[in-house]
Amino acid sequence: MDVDIGNALATVASPGISREALERLDEDVARAHERIEAGRDDAEHGYAALNLPSRTDSDEIYRAVDRPEIADADALVTVGIGGSALGAATIADALSGAEADDGTRTVFLDNVDPEWITSRLESLPLENTAVNVVSRSGTTAETLANFLVVREAFEDAGVDWTERTIVTTGEAGPLRELSDRHGLPALAVPDGVPGRFSALSPVGLVAAAVCGHDLEALLTGASAEAETLAGSLFECPAYAYGATTHALAARGASVNAMMPYAESLETYAEWFAQLWAESLGKDELGQTPVRALGATDQHSQLQLYRAGPRNTLVSFVTPRDRDDRAIPTTDVDDLAYLGDASLGELLRAEFEATEASLAAAGRPNVRIELERVDAFELGGLLYGMEAACVLAGELAGVNAFDQPAVEWAKKATRGLLGGTDAAGNRLEEADAVAEKTTLRVDR
Amino acid sequence: MDVDIGNALATVASPGISREALERLDEDVARAHERIEAGRDDAEHGYAALNLPSRTDSDEIYRAVDRPEIADADALVTVGIGGSALGAATIADALSGAEADDGTRTVFLDNVDPEWITSRLESLPLENTAVNVVSRSGTTAETLANFLVVREAFEDAGVDWTERTIVTTGEAGPLRELSDRHGLPALAVPDGVPGRFSALSPVGLVAAAVCGHDLEALLTGASAEAETLAGSLFECPAYAYGATTHALAARGASVNAMMPYAESLETYAEWFAQLWAESLGKDELGQTPVRALGATDQHSQLQLYRAGPRNTLVSFVTPRDRDDRAIPTTDVDDLAYLGDASLGELLRAEFEATEASLAAAGRPNVRIELERVDAFELGGLLYGMEAACVLAGELAGVNAFDQPAVEWAKKATRGLLGGTDAAGNRLEEADAVAEKTTLRVDR
Repeated sequence: MDVDIGNALATVASPGISREALERLDEDVARAHERIEAGRDDAEHGYAALNLPSRTDSDEIYRAVDRPEIADADALVTVGIGGSALGAATIADALSGAEADDGTRTVFLDNVDPEWITSRLESLPLENTAVNVVSRSGTTAETLANFLVVREAFEDAGVDWTERTIVTTGEAGPLRELSDRHGLPALAVPDGVPGRFSALSPVGLVAAAVCGHDLEALLTGASAEAETLAGSLFECPAYAYGATTHALAARGASVNAMMPYAESLETYAEWFAQLWAESLGKDELGQTPVRALGATDQHSQLQLYRAGPRNTLVSFVTPRDRDDRAIPTTDVDDLAYLGDASLGELLRAEFEATEASLAAAGRPNVRIELERVDAFELGGLLYGMEAACVLAGELAGVNAFDQPAVEWAKKATRGLLGGTDAAGNRLEEADAVAEKTTLRVDR
Repeated sequence: MDVDIGNALATVASPGISREALERLDEDVARAHERIEAGRDDAEHGYAALNLPSRTDSDEIYRAVDRPEIADADALVTVGIGGSALGAATIADALSGAEADDGTRTVFLDNVDPEWITSRLESLPLENTAVNVVSRSGTTAETLANFLVVREAFEDAGVDWTERTIVTTGEAGPLRELSDRHGLPALAVPDGVPGRFSALSPVGLVAAAVCGHDLEALLTGASAEAETLAGSLFECPAYAYGATTHALAARGASVNAMMPYAESLETYAEWFAQLWAESLGKDELGQTPVRALGATDQHSQLQLYRAGPRNTLVSFVTPRDRDDRAIPTTDVDDLAYLGDASLGELLRAEFEATEASLAAAGRPNVRIELERVDAFELGGLLYGMEAACVLAGELAGVNAFDQPAVEWAKKATRGLLGGTDAAGNRLEEADAVAEKTTLRVDR
């Protein structure tokens, strides 16, 4: 990916960063880079994620899905949530229009809404559907509940789920035991890689392999991005992005609106939101990621970003090239200008106009450019954003690799459903739920 | 809708509002309510939106779609963007599982990405597809470009688009002329109603009518919500929500995460984001809406909302009742607690746990409850949020009904594509695009 931070400079925007401050910040970037490289060398928890492109064995993944019931399935259901779903969904959605796609329908069961689960299952040709279950611990409540439901649906339909299920999980736990018992193909969630950083491992790549996407191109693109990591933000696109967002957050940009100008990258914006929120949102620090989509959200969010509080950085992602389609000419005078253009030219003009409109209003924005949306460039984008996030964590002095604040609600959920802790004791978080303060205004 | 603001009180959360401050604020609410009622009585611009439930003629809409090529279509393509798409999409998505649904596939062409448009069109059975074009001015670039493309696709397929196209537009303009020339069924965008407030007019209801949803129930639900408007936030759920968000924004909650616990309300959160961003994001004021989804985004955003900056209000929307599905029992010890529950109970426990986990961390949140997700309750929710938004605009002293900051980019887009102003002059906004400041870091 290429990055242009010109519209985040203090000469253009407020908040913005001066060239002098950028150069001072670059000394911190150099130190952070050393820390990151040391972490990568020792494969420390979290830092190990940045080694995935050279560690992930795409042949192993292709072999694991190489059963006719899986590789030739018409549909693939991925059962996972959060980091166990978003990377796979991002890759599937970004590349679903790419030529290597074999037309497999992909469905992600990443929520436990019963009405929605039922309608998803009813829409699937179960006798020709494969299942991809992903959970590191093998105990994630939503994922295991959904898997139990999916398994029952196959059994009710008289279809042998053991022939068409692939598991990605840790070295131990219920899913590992299950795969051992039934001889299911099983891949390992890599050690030291938090879920939100695992897109370039089997967690994110099994679905891509079943769909016929080019895993090698994804990993090669990520490796090319890894090659750019260097001790200066002026030499490394990922660090330019990470350092700029850090500097702007410190200067008041508490919101980061990630706005790709490509429908195929809509899910990428969701993946980015998890990466940014869960990695950097701690110690009362962090930047709120907002998922946006160009050009659509110009008609929804742009008013706020251009004229609301000066607290938002807009991050554009746009491909330089894409398959285009002409706009037919029209005899309506006021619309004649459209007939000389293509949809791609209109979308590009909308992007440049929106970028310039924010700059004209002194609102900071960053441009991230891809050559086009394909496997190689996508691998680079995902890797680049992970590296940017790790750098931003270093600069902010937070641990980008844990997520302690989500544990409370997990315990309370378990307790509310009658579960206990490992010692068999009632979970006190569940009791707190009953003590809710209320001030009701009912219809 | 019912609203519980207990977890936004200063005794629970920071930022939060004290009971005393709420009571003082209630005097402002009383004055704002008088202003709103006066605006409704005179059908003033914007305020007129709150009269839609009693003004919209559902019979007229049913008559307009009552052609076999439209009413019996297998798929309906809505061509529109922003307020001309989000209301219709919200209703279609929320009610697609409801029993009245006739199974019509709904597609919304609300972006001009050429790869995506081509794949959408290729996926449609054009000989059995109806088209719903929505643009007040009849000149919206994205909508008209897409309509020209759609029209050509029908012509290329040898299908007469004039038999299966319905138009919703203003009293004049290219789309009105087109519908007159070809005798297309045409409905009017109501006067004085900005696009983002038009869900309960033909703008939002044509697609619902084609899908067989109950327009009367939607409008009756909205009317029931309108009946609750009163001069005190303690008596009116919509005002309780609007006043609380205003008070918390003033106390530092610059972000409002709208988090429904129902997949069918995912698009509602997008609709809310436009309503909130475009109506209140001006004069350097406003609150950034974030679209979230429970339980999925517990595994993505919750870490930030619970432990990040104290700048976020989380707004939950949850139905009290829904069709449920049992979780099959399992012999895995650690998961046995799931087998005693249903997916609906798990989702409810997740909601209550998340709500309590935020409160336990002193983070403000509001609970909005619906009886269930059906047409009556959805009408109430959409109306209630519109009324809340109008109130919040009054309390902040901003005009909730304009969106001046989006004009610049529209002119620049037009200029970049060679269009001119009405007098034939080049648009200077386009020139500004070429003057972009750059600081590139390329791979």
